Amino acid sequence: MNNNPTDLLEYKEKMEIKGKIDQYYKSQEMKNGLESLKRIKSYLPDTYKGLYIMRNIVFAHLDFGPILELAAEGREFTVVSGLNPSSPLHLGHKVLFDILLFLQSLGGRIFIPITNDESFVDGKTKSLSESRRIAYQEIIPSIIAFGFDPEKTHIFVDSDYPDLYNFAIHLSNKFSLPEVTTVFGENSLNTPGQIFYRSAVQMSQILMPQLPEFGGPKPVLIPVGVDQHPYILLARDTAKKMKLVPSSELVFKFLPSLRNPENKMSGSKPETAIYLTDTPDVIRHKIDKAYTGSLSSLTAHRKLGAIPEICSVFSLFFFHHPDKNLVSRIYRRYKSGKMTTSELKEIVKEFITNIILDHQDKKKNITANNINSFLLKKPLRSFLEY
Amino acid sequence: MNNNPTDLLEYKEKMEIKGKIDQYYKSQEMKNGLESLKRIKSYLPDTYKGLYIMRNIVFAHLDFGPILELAAEGREFTVVSGLNPSSPLHLGHKVLFDILLFLQSLGGRIFIPITNDESFVDGKTKSLSESRRIAYQEIIPSIIAFGFDPEKTHIFVDSDYPDLYNFAIHLSNKFSLPEVTTVFGENSLNTPGQIFYRSAVQMSQILMPQLPEFGGPKPVLIPVGVDQHPYILLARDTAKKMKLVPSSELVFKFLPSLRNPENKMSGSKPETAIYLTDTPDVIRHKIDKAYTGSLSSLTAHRKLGAIPEICSVFSLFFFHHPDKNLVSRIYRRYKSGKMTTSELKEIVKEFITNIILDHQDKKKNITANNINSFLLKKPLRSFLEY
Repeated sequence: MNNNPTDLLEYKEKMEIKGKIDQYYKSQEMKNGLESLKRIKSYLPDTYKGLYIMRNIVFAHLDFGPILELAAEGREFTVVSGLNPSSPLHLGHKVLFDILLFLQSLGGRIFIPITNDESFVDGKTKSLSESRRIAYQEIIPSIIAFGFDPEKTHIFVDSDYPDLYNFAIHLSNKFSLPEVTTVFGENSLNTPGQIFYRSAVQMSQILMPQLPEFGGPKPVLIPVGVDQHPYILLARDTAKKMKLVPSSELVFKFLPSLRNPENKMSGSKPETAIYLTDTPDVIRHKIDKAYTGSLSSLTAHRKLGAIPEICSVFSLFFFHHPDKNLVSRIYRRYKSGKMTTSELKEIVKEFITNIILDHQDKKKNITANNINSFLLKKPLRSFLEY
Repeated sequence: MNNNPTDLLEYKEKMEIKGKIDQYYKSQEMKNGLESLKRIKSYLPDTYKGLYIMRNIVFAHLDFGPILELAAEGREFTVVSGLNPSSPLHLGHKVLFDILLFLQSLGGRIFIPITNDESFVDGKTKSLSESRRIAYQEIIPSIIAFGFDPEKTHIFVDSDYPDLYNFAIHLSNKFSLPEVTTVFGENSLNTPGQIFYRSAVQMSQILMPQLPEFGGPKPVLIPVGVDQHPYILLARDTAKKMKLVPSSELVFKFLPSLRNPENKMSGSKPETAIYLTDTPDVIRHKIDKAYTGSLSSLTAHRKLGAIPEICSVFSLFFFHHPDKNLVSRIYRRYKSGKMTTSELKEIVKEFITNIILDHQDKKKNITANNINSFLLKKPLRSFLEY
């Protein structure tokens, strides 16, 4: 039996999407001086890789070397990574926090700015108080539930750590406006708050651990999604002007949107995301509606197979399931067409429902005292003293 | 004897300068909706005028009416006026503080932001710590020495009152960039810190007394130099967007530069200013070198007289001496040519030296405890609560 021309066309379209995504990450790796992780991976023992480096989800870096050296010597190293609190966390955030947990297991001291000012200046929340509420009621309990070590994890909500703004003012004459516009694009710079936040406040979060308050200049690792790489370049330039160590960077791929593998899962578009607050019913419904790597016709699927790389359902499994052999087995069975889309969806629904219910259980037990033990309170004053 | 043509030319040039200055203030009064104080003055009892309104140094206003009503009812009203700490205070600042003291005598509760962030972002000091040091070592002791009431005067240094930055972020989405550029001019907006300071931080200082922390919406009077009027227009627009009361405004004329009556005395140009820290020798020297309203030739001075209105030496007397009759007498004698420039200078030297030595005496006795009793410490949180 010959292949149906419609099926072939569909297959070709899906392969083109895969090509575009591969090409996108390849181009990102090449540009702006990012380095592939391949060379480092070739000599790195598996214990230093973790799930995300092993699977090429973390795929590029800048100056990761000095961080690995500290880890190899059993010494502490510093990591900064924050997020803006405009909705509950979703599985895309979990990727970031899993990377942070892995880095903490290697010896990382982790600073987590919760940027409620960013949510507000970007219009993602109607008020500072709304994003502040989401920070304390949703985001911080979730982060703690992931299992971070309170001794080595420092969380702060920007509006409750206003010393940071003094540091931002202290840095603010290091950038010119055209420089800032080039990095962030004019379209995201419509108000004084956006300009100040994107440049001065964001850079102050990245450079803060190098203040004398935290022991002075040191390598600091910033894990970022690939779209944030230009910010790190600005941070590195700023570090040089301040006679600080240019930031190290790890770049990870996005967990794809449930609806379109070329976009990322986004908290502001509920249909694209599975939130850590979703109920089992909602999770099952969202996975049922998700974009897959399979052809529409079952016959064609059996014959031509699926494309797991562009499958939002398979990605949920690939980005989160710790069992390498199981992931490989499902990849092969789905790709070959032996496993149907419904079978894949059932497996993924069960897996995702379990990790989310487990997370919700842990989060329920987080108290105000737990939260308090994670909050950064150290005053930032060194640059004000005379 | 006929007038010497050179003398006449010099006289004509000086009269042209007077014309330009008169025209400048007249044009300021007319434009942007400022109102002359003449109408209010016509029915105002002298006790509500004070030296500066009497002498037309405070010459225009917006919504001064509601403030006067509160004063007339013996009720408290609110005033905000700050300055950036890049040099010790000079006699130009004393004009502002004398106006504030007068307003306090009418019942004003006064907020004085010392904007060390402004000094730094504008490059007037090399660091935030330098402008912070000037604030505490020079500016605040001077202000206290003027005789403000600690119960009704609230001083804060921006970097030590970082809650203000939260309020600035809270306001920051009320302005668009083009709006800000129009008000402040592109040339003063070169860095993210300048943009954020000029708009959001400055507006937050003006609107802060209307927060629930200070009793909620109310008329707030802002005395400003004439070049700052556009900022008040932006503040009034912002107040409307925030459902607050648009700021009231009093506009005063500049104490002229010692060197050029068309410019203002400026702390960053020492030859134009008499600092409250200057020694008697320096004061005498600066007055000796000052631009005057007299003609070069004594004969011509005797014959044609002087132009006190453009005389930087006479202005020192006119802006500061409390004795109305004495000021008038010297004005007439100098204008008519009966009093020589050297006689005028001797009188002014003695007067200015006395008030400055007196100020220095009082300032010497200001302690850290005194300073502490004036510092504003109230947290600003209402817009963060949920």
